Amino acid sequence: MNQNMEVDNERMEKSLRKLGEWKEVVNELLEKEFKTYTKRAKEIHPEASRMVEYLRNFSMRGGKRIRPGLVIAGYKAVGGNNHGRITKAAVSLEAFQTYVLIHDDVEDEDDERRGGPTMHKMYEEVYEKEDMIGGKEKYGRNIAITAGSLAGSYSVDTLSKTDFDAETKIKAVRKLEQIHRYTAAGQTLDHTINHRKTEEVTEEDVLKIHELKTAQYTIAGPLELGAILGKGTKEQIKVLREFGIKAGKAFQTYDDMLGLYGTKEKLGKPVDSDLKEGKKTLLILKALENGNEEQKRKIKNALGNEEITQEEVEEVRKIVKETGSYEYSKKRVGKMIEESKEALKDSNEINPEIKEFLLGIADYIITREV
Amino acid sequence: MNQNMEVDNERMEKSLRKLGEWKEVVNELLEKEFKTYTKRAKEIHPEASRMVEYLRNFSMRGGKRIRPGLVIAGYKAVGGNNHGRITKAAVSLEAFQTYVLIHDDVEDEDDERRGGPTMHKMYEEVYEKEDMIGGKEKYGRNIAITAGSLAGSYSVDTLSKTDFDAETKIKAVRKLEQIHRYTAAGQTLDHTINHRKTEEVTEEDVLKIHELKTAQYTIAGPLELGAILGKGTKEQIKVLREFGIKAGKAFQTYDDMLGLYGTKEKLGKPVDSDLKEGKKTLLILKALENGNEEQKRKIKNALGNEEITQEEVEEVRKIVKETGSYEYSKKRVGKMIEESKEALKDSNEINPEIKEFLLGIADYIITREV
Repeated sequence: MNQNMEVDNERMEKSLRKLGEWKEVVNELLEKEFKTYTKRAKEIHPEASRMVEYLRNFSMRGGKRIRPGLVIAGYKAVGGNNHGRITKAAVSLEAFQTYVLIHDDVEDEDDERRGGPTMHKMYEEVYEKEDMIGGKEKYGRNIAITAGSLAGSYSVDTLSKTDFDAETKIKAVRKLEQIHRYTAAGQTLDHTINHRKTEEVTEEDVLKIHELKTAQYTIAGPLELGAILGKGTKEQIKVLREFGIKAGKAFQTYDDMLGLYGTKEKLGKPVDSDLKEGKKTLLILKALENGNEEQKRKIKNALGNEEITQEEVEEVRKIVKETGSYEYSKKRVGKMIEESKEALKDSNEINPEIKEFLLGIADYIITREV
Repeated sequence: MNQNMEVDNERMEKSLRKLGEWKEVVNELLEKEFKTYTKRAKEIHPEASRMVEYLRNFSMRGGKRIRPGLVIAGYKAVGGNNHGRITKAAVSLEAFQTYVLIHDDVEDEDDERRGGPTMHKMYEEVYEKEDMIGGKEKYGRNIAITAGSLAGSYSVDTLSKTDFDAETKIKAVRKLEQIHRYTAAGQTLDHTINHRKTEEVTEEDVLKIHELKTAQYTIAGPLELGAILGKGTKEQIKVLREFGIKAGKAFQTYDDMLGLYGTKEKLGKPVDSDLKEGKKTLLILKALENGNEEQKRKIKNALGNEEITQEEVEEVRKIVKETGSYEYSKKRVGKMIEESKEALKDSNEINPEIKEFLLGIADYIITREV
């Protein structure tokens, strides 16, 4: 989708290499954290150990570690220079992400994540293997809710035990809980609009979800958390937030495009899952706004249809392009990415190396393969 | 059940009055907290405000505030003397309790709590009133999972913003997360044994759940959290933990007795809900161990039976008494309460006024009406 955009490929590749390096360290530290939690769980009960093992499996089997990477970037952006210390703190947001994904999968009743079974599916296997009673789905769901919450608890604990001074850590914990509140509000709004009739849902609602679930949670929140740990100034934090909110909104709009036009291999989940769950994306809303009666009817039939065929998915893809909705989202994404880059470029407050890194990340957001 | 136990009624009444006084202050502060969160939520989205309003309703409609009371007691037990400061911190555990109850109700598919609808039932009403689509149960459940998590987030935030020094707050946050882990392990074990065939469940499993979900979470955890905030010594914390673990185990065993022999009015939930969800209490396990084939069959038929009649509930009550299982639990409760009291009495480390308070609470635990 980068044909009309000014993308500096060399800079982007450099950012991705940097993100990849950080990912390696984050993964090593994650493994170490799981070892600590396993040791503690073993003292409690075999069921507690199994849960840590399953959380480890779920966390380590995939994920780009974008959020931890942005915590590290936010810290360095404001002049922080203790790499070991910030990396340990960054792990916290990956534990948080595990928590969010597990609950999300329970709520959407999805079977696959990161190319493997979702947490509730893993426990449904336990149910079968150990010949349990009382309902497989219920068992899987209930244990997965607890497993998600446990990962959430790890995120606070991991952050609290880092080597930053206590004042700074308390500020960071409060920021983490603010991110938690935004994420919860986004999740609530997301479920609510998906349960409202399509004609009652506004573009504004959808963009609010993008702001809360992605802009705040995925980009701005991690950057700000890192900046707080690096004792950044208000001005520095403001610049990072502005970049993060704009880039984050673009990220989610683009993600919804990937969700409709991507492949299972790239997404790590079936391509029809957004349609099956009746997700009212900007793509869908605009197509309904601009489509003729026939096109509207076809989209409405596809939305929330658990039995949707590959043919019907193709039909929706076609309509979204024909109605100009695809082009509309694409333009929005491009504009927001441009604005996010300008917010950064105009500032003298941000470490120049990290500025380059973030500009590369902004390009990456709109260059991921569809 | 206090006929064979040495209970100092005057002391117990004094403890309950004290707990009642603290409850008033905790409730005032809770209301204030909800006002703050409502104000923030209003800036986000009407759906976010509705969730805070529902959390407020759920939290304020009942509850004895035992956990916040024990946080205050733990603080004063080690010599803490800033009443205003500790009360604000104590509110944190009530938010945590709201979180645990909401998820518990989702998991057990319960309809009532504290004499009103559970959180998922409140949102099922929203679904109906606002003529939503996509499944009432699914909407209620998914939003309630998020509402519970949001209350959990409040618990960390509330604790983090108190006026204690940052070092102490970080220690308290880590203790809160340890309580969180114990609770999660207890919940996991609880669901797992309820999904295992009765003959695979051991008394040891059941007692482990009592230790994790009640002893640690309800009594020892809050006392220790308070003691940490009061900068208590290791020795002081050890005494409080020992009291808490023993009193907490007694509390849960007694609670299961209330669950079978209580009335809906006293419990705030239907008396058959433990049986319906197939809860394998010590009462049930012992009755199965000692019962004849006819008695065993009747209990097994009642366990997990969603259609259980009042007559069948009465039958189970009778069998549990006939097999000596009721007496066994009663004796255990008595013994553990005696031991918890001795742990306190033998110590010179604990503020004498709080020692008296806790001895009164121990008596209260086994004097609650069946």
